[in-house]
Amino acid sequence: MNLPLIINLAPTGLVPSRSDSALLPLSIEEISNDVARCAALGASMVHLHARDAAGNASNDPQLVGELISAVRQRVPEIVITATTSGRRAADIEQRASALRLQGVAKPDMASLTLASMNFARDASVNAPASVMRLAEIMLENDIKPELEVFDLGMVNFAHILIDKGLLKPPYYFNLLLGNPATAQATLLHLGMLVNDLPAGSIWSVAGIGRYQTRATALGVAMGHGVRTGLEDNLWFDDERTTLASNAQLVQRAVALAQAQGRTLASAGQVRTMLGLRVPA
Amino acid sequence: MNLPLIINLAPTGLVPSRSDSALLPLSIEEISNDVARCAALGASMVHLHARDAAGNASNDPQLVGELISAVRQRVPEIVITATTSGRRAADIEQRASALRLQGVAKPDMASLTLASMNFARDASVNAPASVMRLAEIMLENDIKPELEVFDLGMVNFAHILIDKGLLKPPYYFNLLLGNPATAQATLLHLGMLVNDLPAGSIWSVAGIGRYQTRATALGVAMGHGVRTGLEDNLWFDDERTTLASNAQLVQRAVALAQAQGRTLASAGQVRTMLGLRVPA
Repeated sequence: MNLPLIINLAPTGLVPSRSDSALLPLSIEEISNDVARCAALGASMVHLHARDAAGNASNDPQLVGELISAVRQRVPEIVITATTSGRRAADIEQRASALRLQGVAKPDMASLTLASMNFARDASVNAPASVMRLAEIMLENDIKPELEVFDLGMVNFAHILIDKGLLKPPYYFNLLLGNPATAQATLLHLGMLVNDLPAGSIWSVAGIGRYQTRATALGVAMGHGVRTGLEDNLWFDDERTTLASNAQLVQRAVALAQAQGRTLASAGQVRTMLGLRVPA
Repeated sequence: MNLPLIINLAPTGLVPSRSDSALLPLSIEEISNDVARCAALGASMVHLHARDAAGNASNDPQLVGELISAVRQRVPEIVITATTSGRRAADIEQRASALRLQGVAKPDMASLTLASMNFARDASVNAPASVMRLAEIMLENDIKPELEVFDLGMVNFAHILIDKGLLKPPYYFNLLLGNPATAQATLLHLGMLVNDLPAGSIWSVAGIGRYQTRATALGVAMGHGVRTGLEDNLWFDDERTTLASNAQLVQRAVALAQAQGRTLASAGQVRTMLGLRVPA
């Protein structure tokens, strides 16, 4: 495959805690350091969750803005995605608060989970009206959605959003495999998801927990990119004997790409592919 | 296909109202009459939702018990499924209240939606712990789950419940196609769902809204059964010019079965297939 590989780093997430892994970056300084290290290795996108001083997930736009600004200062060109997750915040305006940030604090992209679903332990509620409202706010603020797909119906809903004029090409999809009650990290499930994508979509593959390595391999083998990082998986090995760092997980994707003869997409190339301006 | 066809009637649901269709049965008498009419045509199962005097969906166990008793009086052998829907009731004990009914009021089966998802307008929240608790209560009360599957991950979660000992064979699956953000009424989506089912599953196909006719045709062509009725679709024709009755929707399934040379399963045959005792 000649296309350069997008490596999308999800370094923190909102679920894991310091007691789960000492290698998890939580503070703005820790996250910025991890992003800089991973960007030097080849990551061209980063999917950020802010944590407050106690280490809890936070939608506070000031905190999110500080995090984005700090990451931009360290790695000016990297494509930055903010979360709009509804797992811990139900109110849409609260979920959307980072979408209204300006200047260097403004994210390039934002996550848009396309329907309600279950994670391993809890429900993630994204009612149709909420998804459409978030898409609308992203359009208004010139922020590209990172379309989070966990099962077949979410791809269908992307087509509906396109028909409603709420998504503009090129579309960037994250296909997240391996949750207990969504699509699995199998050839048929991934194949069906990809088969249903809108024409011209850019797609990355992510795997949850023990499925991350396989998902990374599938993404390198067949996709435009991979999403990796401690948000989705804390362990380096399937046997869960050794905790991973974000850098090690990125190195795994890089090693797979090198062995396959694929180059890595630079942040500038990703910006060209997705039509994203370099931040002022 | 030599297997007799199961026709599962969903006459009422919890969403449509009398203003949507004058043909929708809401009172116990109206529902019992529709079930009797459809059983005479060939329906062998019925999926019941109770409505209160104002026509609103109700989980009141007394009302549900009266509805089940009335249906049993009119059609003693039909397999009766009670809803445990979480679309309008969040509390698990409230959702499970019909599972503790006894005697003629006791349902044979109960719906078990296997994860959170979106319907066209609202979210249906079924967190993993809620699904497992409902399955456990069904096991304790000797009530067979009607496993409601809307997408690939829900089949995967059924396998997890089996591994945990929370489901006992034979498994009865309803594969519901055509919601905007779940699996669609296509050969590949249905084929994938069926491909992933546990060995020896009994499966019916349902279609939402305009997809009901196609889903009925697919269920008759390839499945053990179909689910039809006004819960899922109010219209007789794709163009939505003519409102349907439950009897007309059952007649469509019967006509398809006859044209294909398939016999209809009697309620007694369905009880044998699923290992359900005839109610005392």
